[in-house]
Amino acid sequence: MKDKSMRSNRIQKLSRRAILSYGQPISDLMSKALANPSLISLAAGFVDQESLPCEETQEAMRRLTADESAMQQALQYGTTSGYPPLRDAILDRLKHQDQLSDDPTLNIDRMVMTAGSNQLLHLVAETLLDPGDIVPCSSPTYFVFMGTLKNLDVQAEGIESDEHGMIPEALADRLEFWRRRGELSRVKAVYVVSYYDNPRGVSLAYERRQQLVEVCHRFSVDYPIYILDDMAYRELRYENDDQPSLLHFDESRQHVISTGTFSKSFSPGIRVGWGILPESLVAAVCNQKGNIDFGSPNLNQHLMHHVIQVGLLDEHIEQIRGVYRTKLESMLEAADRWLAPLADVHWIRPDGGLYVWVELPQEVDAGLGSALFERAMEEGVLYVPGEFCFADSGVPIRKNTLRLSFGVQTPKRIAQGVEALGRAIRDVTDR
Amino acid sequence: MKDKSMRSNRIQKLSRRAILSYGQPISDLMSKALANPSLISLAAGFVDQESLPCEETQEAMRRLTADESAMQQALQYGTTSGYPPLRDAILDRLKHQDQLSDDPTLNIDRMVMTAGSNQLLHLVAETLLDPGDIVPCSSPTYFVFMGTLKNLDVQAEGIESDEHGMIPEALADRLEFWRRRGELSRVKAVYVVSYYDNPRGVSLAYERRQQLVEVCHRFSVDYPIYILDDMAYRELRYENDDQPSLLHFDESRQHVISTGTFSKSFSPGIRVGWGILPESLVAAVCNQKGNIDFGSPNLNQHLMHHVIQVGLLDEHIEQIRGVYRTKLESMLEAADRWLAPLADVHWIRPDGGLYVWVELPQEVDAGLGSALFERAMEEGVLYVPGEFCFADSGVPIRKNTLRLSFGVQTPKRIAQGVEALGRAIRDVTDR
Repeated sequence: MKDKSMRSNRIQKLSRRAILSYGQPISDLMSKALANPSLISLAAGFVDQESLPCEETQEAMRRLTADESAMQQALQYGTTSGYPPLRDAILDRLKHQDQLSDDPTLNIDRMVMTAGSNQLLHLVAETLLDPGDIVPCSSPTYFVFMGTLKNLDVQAEGIESDEHGMIPEALADRLEFWRRRGELSRVKAVYVVSYYDNPRGVSLAYERRQQLVEVCHRFSVDYPIYILDDMAYRELRYENDDQPSLLHFDESRQHVISTGTFSKSFSPGIRVGWGILPESLVAAVCNQKGNIDFGSPNLNQHLMHHVIQVGLLDEHIEQIRGVYRTKLESMLEAADRWLAPLADVHWIRPDGGLYVWVELPQEVDAGLGSALFERAMEEGVLYVPGEFCFADSGVPIRKNTLRLSFGVQTPKRIAQGVEALGRAIRDVTDR
Repeated sequence: MKDKSMRSNRIQKLSRRAILSYGQPISDLMSKALANPSLISLAAGFVDQESLPCEETQEAMRRLTADESAMQQALQYGTTSGYPPLRDAILDRLKHQDQLSDDPTLNIDRMVMTAGSNQLLHLVAETLLDPGDIVPCSSPTYFVFMGTLKNLDVQAEGIESDEHGMIPEALADRLEFWRRRGELSRVKAVYVVSYYDNPRGVSLAYERRQQLVEVCHRFSVDYPIYILDDMAYRELRYENDDQPSLLHFDESRQHVISTGTFSKSFSPGIRVGWGILPESLVAAVCNQKGNIDFGSPNLNQHLMHHVIQVGLLDEHIEQIRGVYRTKLESMLEAADRWLAPLADVHWIRPDGGLYVWVELPQEVDAGLGSALFERAMEEGVLYVPGEFCFADSGVPIRKNTLRLSFGVQTPKRIAQGVEALGRAIRDVTDR
């Protein structure tokens, strides 16, 4: 018996999907950071710890527990699509932001509550995509979602993008290329992080929003091509005005899938996100959600409902905007001081989000295990190599790039981290 | 543009998985119950609303919010596998229950925290199973998991079961059948609800626990055949002593996958469950979990940790045992009064769980849309047709069965519901 069980454990038989799957590259970085606490990690996309809404959550808990019958409801099973009053509150907010308050077709029956926006991305991918399908995305883009696609054996395709986001003409060209090859049906959705994206902090420009919707409409000949509009960072705006989301530009209201989350704007530990879906996808997405987790925890949804109703969300967003603005300034000032003198080092100045994207001279490799990466660790700073943020296909990987996060560290440590990075770059380029 | 978008919405192109998927049959029943509130639903597997732990949760919240740094941690991202002190507390509890406290190989690195036990079932299925694989399960068994398997294009196979659970010889015979056909590699896991199962309230007998583990060991020739031990109802014990879980009998500790949840024993709205995995599966399961939701909400895990540490869980379990014992007695008394006089109507008397399983005369169809089902609704009672609880393959579906839940309704309404069911059965069998 012993022998058999030992033998049987030598050969492991996993599903095709499990074999395709692999740990996110970021988890290696996290273990490096954990193993060496003195390292200044500008890698993690976590949020600022000090400003997490302890009092606000406590207040929402007080309000929830004050009404025993509401509390009982919060502790009971909910529905797969989520707590209706919370869906109402989120939709109201969004319709107001997107100047869509008059549109009765946008109703809560089109919404599903999820574990962050990330789960909505996964559910939509699971619902729409088969192995071999293609998802055009910005280049670079959010690497976690590319991991999800890989797990589904779906090809992420990097579309040319600049400081105003994905270039609509480049998307149209690529769609036309697939159309001519008779492969357009492999494209069911285009993925866009439309506000202060991960990893570059870039927002999709106003006119491009309209153009992207138009391109997807135009190529929806045999099947709809959806735009998956990931608004995870929308509320982290430190300069300039908000602009309407892609839904605003989709007059049919049938081509845009919107998703957002309170993980960045309030608390990732409460982990409440949401999606607004074309009617034709609601049942299918909820079926997947039902199979996966039966619906997100009811307690958390009730809490977030109180948070929004009492105005705690808006208050908190105002507060963290101040916190992150200071951190961003610290990072940009340090970059001006320590990176600007270096030849051919450039970075994007975002007006929101959590990230600053740095481009090094063409020949410098910033990848995992590169001389620069190792040198930076020796100097005491950890970053995310940009190579992880490019799709395997489409626009080529640019190894001379890196992502810096300013969410977690204090302004002082951010400045020290950028200084250390500057030393590392100088060392490596001087050689 | 308008035309195009309308046309594109006529033809919807979903993933193969989404097409295989379909709403759980139970959701139709739920809408019937919602549409007619005067109906006594003995269908929903929900828990008793009145005894939900409002004060206990409030107390746990107080303790959590009292320590600002712990609160900040709870509001931040956690890890994919979950909050270590909670995993510790759960494992301690389990090792104590299963007389495994001395086993150092059972450690929290083998655990993952999930959205109820249901998510662990989904994750394991996703990790192990490919389309065409086979999962032997009791007959009848938990229909939600069969839905999950269908979604993965995996065949659930009903193995002969009696009032002591799955019959080990029947499983061995079936495995031997597949072995001879060279199809044993299609079987990666056997699914068992080992305590007060859904839908029959039946527990796996002590000696069968040992035998089932032995059978799975014996047939793990080329690949391991795991036993997926679903302990969702373990704590809902109203009579007799607890018995050790399957893990206790698996000396290798490499063949049993254990899962449990606080959804039944504490609160489904907090939605915290867990799994203990063979070491060789941990990374793969966590990768799937990472892709799906990044890890369960940290706040809920911190709350449950306080609940366990302060002894609130044990207190609450004691309390609800009393509540459910009374409800079960009410159902059994009503059955003795209203069903016993009917010819050839039998039911199982469980000593735990939330369900009573009723068998009608062979020729009576209790299925959805049957004369009995419709008559029962007219009489004012809703039940789950037993037909949903049988696998498509293996032991044939028995349409003359039904599941009654005593979790939600008051003892009085339970008795009224059973009385109404008695009238409906008499009416239909008298015709």
